[in-house]
Amino acid sequence: MSADDTAHMAHALALGRRGLGNCWPNPAVGCVIVKDGRIVGRGWTQPGGRPHAEVVALTQAGTTARGATAYVTLEPCAHHGKTPPCADALVTAGVARVVAALEDSDPRVSGQGFARLRSAGIAVTTDVLADQALRDQEGFFRKVEQGRPMVTLKLACSFDGRIATATGESQWITGPEARRRVHAMRLSHDAVMVGAGTVRADDPTLNVRGMGTVRQPLRVVVSRHLDLPIDSALAQTARDIPVWICHGPSATGPRRTAWADTGAHLIEARVTGGQMDMGDVLRLLGTNGLTRVFCEGGGALAASLLQAGLVDRLAVFTAGMALGAEGRPALGALGIDTLAEAPRFALDSVEICGADVLQLWRRA
Amino acid sequence: MSADDTAHMAHALALGRRGLGNCWPNPAVGCVIVKDGRIVGRGWTQPGGRPHAEVVALTQAGTTARGATAYVTLEPCAHHGKTPPCADALVTAGVARVVAALEDSDPRVSGQGFARLRSAGIAVTTDVLADQALRDQEGFFRKVEQGRPMVTLKLACSFDGRIATATGESQWITGPEARRRVHAMRLSHDAVMVGAGTVRADDPTLNVRGMGTVRQPLRVVVSRHLDLPIDSALAQTARDIPVWICHGPSATGPRRTAWADTGAHLIEARVTGGQMDMGDVLRLLGTNGLTRVFCEGGGALAASLLQAGLVDRLAVFTAGMALGAEGRPALGALGIDTLAEAPRFALDSVEICGADVLQLWRRA
Repeated sequence: MSADDTAHMAHALALGRRGLGNCWPNPAVGCVIVKDGRIVGRGWTQPGGRPHAEVVALTQAGTTARGATAYVTLEPCAHHGKTPPCADALVTAGVARVVAALEDSDPRVSGQGFARLRSAGIAVTTDVLADQALRDQEGFFRKVEQGRPMVTLKLACSFDGRIATATGESQWITGPEARRRVHAMRLSHDAVMVGAGTVRADDPTLNVRGMGTVRQPLRVVVSRHLDLPIDSALAQTARDIPVWICHGPSATGPRRTAWADTGAHLIEARVTGGQMDMGDVLRLLGTNGLTRVFCEGGGALAASLLQAGLVDRLAVFTAGMALGAEGRPALGALGIDTLAEAPRFALDSVEICGADVLQLWRRA
Repeated sequence: MSADDTAHMAHALALGRRGLGNCWPNPAVGCVIVKDGRIVGRGWTQPGGRPHAEVVALTQAGTTARGATAYVTLEPCAHHGKTPPCADALVTAGVARVVAALEDSDPRVSGQGFARLRSAGIAVTTDVLADQALRDQEGFFRKVEQGRPMVTLKLACSFDGRIATATGESQWITGPEARRRVHAMRLSHDAVMVGAGTVRADDPTLNVRGMGTVRQPLRVVVSRHLDLPIDSALAQTARDIPVWICHGPSATGPRRTAWADTGAHLIEARVTGGQMDMGDVLRLLGTNGLTRVFCEGGGALAASLLQAGLVDRLAVFTAGMALGAEGRPALGALGIDTLAEAPRFALDSVEICGADVLQLWRRA
């Protein structure tokens, strides 16, 4: 591994991240093709997951790819899916060397992409900037290895951890810069998820605004009894941007029919201890292809996810405002008696967003 | 004002800050004396408030002070207090020029120090790094202008704003680096203040540990009924480090006697609406000489201060831990219905303290 390898891989990783939230169920991959020190091709997984990054970059490079080095952020696929294998495309193009950040843990690929390249006489270097690549691929790997999407939990609260006044006023605790940052975060996830209480209280649209977005993340609502207003903004826009509703077995037939009629996709999940079983909900979301879910509350859903150990990343926006103990808490009850039982997170970074602070934490 | 003036004043301000928490009721002043570009004297207000910074620096400079420039962070005093006026000392030493950050708002000084210097033929430049000096002198100016000390409120909570589990376990939510930072903050304040509930729950010592401290900040407890354990750590150490207890008129004679016997200083303040009147408590602390008070909770006292608009600075430590809605809230009820009523703060800075985050806010 050389300094050049690191620089080109950093470039490929940056390209790959453009696909995050935009190419599920496929991984968001980046590819840079370098010939004699010059970049001759750049690609990333396209919306919906196809074409793959390698094919985009190879097409751009054309015949100059012969003898070149290809930097890919994930092991090239070796199986025939909806597209021919990228490993074969690299062989056919005649690249001399492939540098990869990570081996794919998808059993259909794992190691076989590299084997295919090596058997064709291509030099293969792996584990270049693997840590960063692992972060970028966390959603894809969780789905492949654990059968569920990665979950980012967002909280936007006063400095005493409240998300609304006692009367429910919550617009706006954080300022426009923080809200813009939230929209950018939505965009890098496959879906935005909220609980039924948030739908009833705020009637949110949960779409991405002000970012020139073409493809919107889909909207997921968790509602055990499917008791959601049928005239809500989500119902009215369900044919424009998909709405998936995860409900329990007790949801009545008329409610199921009414919501199916709006165009929403209904997913029945298990109920455990009187609450939606979030492990089962996420498993079903994974089965439906999601790799990255952005949960925006409310407090009860956030607490359920934390209790079940299903929160991978945490984005906490703090406003310079106190709301007091009568305000609505960011998290519902967790059933914790001692500090040793508390879910713990390690700090990733801190950003200042206008007048607010954003802390990014990940599961410890 | 030149770049040299700014650099020397920054030096004087840094020296002056050494006295914060250490020289009340006097202001913490810094002084640098410069002759032909060389620093010939440095001083800061000494423990207990005397000697003043100018005298320390002039003593160090000796006869080289003649024709030199003196940088002082506050207008030199012109009145005979417990020491002769510093303005006279500068005149006697024969300095050619005085550069000051701020005019003193103490009516015994205000403008008269500068007038005294000018009438002796000394050139005077003011308002050099005045903003930073104003921050450093906030406690002194609040006492002079509003008759109360500056209040810094510290909160150390989980990311959902809880300071303990439901069972009261709170040690330790934040890590050793954050706790060390708290001790440094205590050291830069005249006094550490807590509510009665914190004394009963945690039996704290509230002293500064691990920083080689000679002079400890005094301890203030707010306890309406004076119902504090007489065998508490505060009672046992009251003869070593002063303990002041602010109580209401209803505190019984026996309790007053018992606490006075420990060596504690009792201060009777008004009660308003069934609670200690924090405006009156702070006024009395100001009368007793305090300029900088560091409040470490609990939630009820913190809420009283915020409700009364008496929190000037806020230090919020956040740990990567969730405690849930059943945990103890960082703030008690504030009686707020709408966001418009919420006390607001503007961000000063963010620091990473080990595994925790420290946000510093100031009154908006």
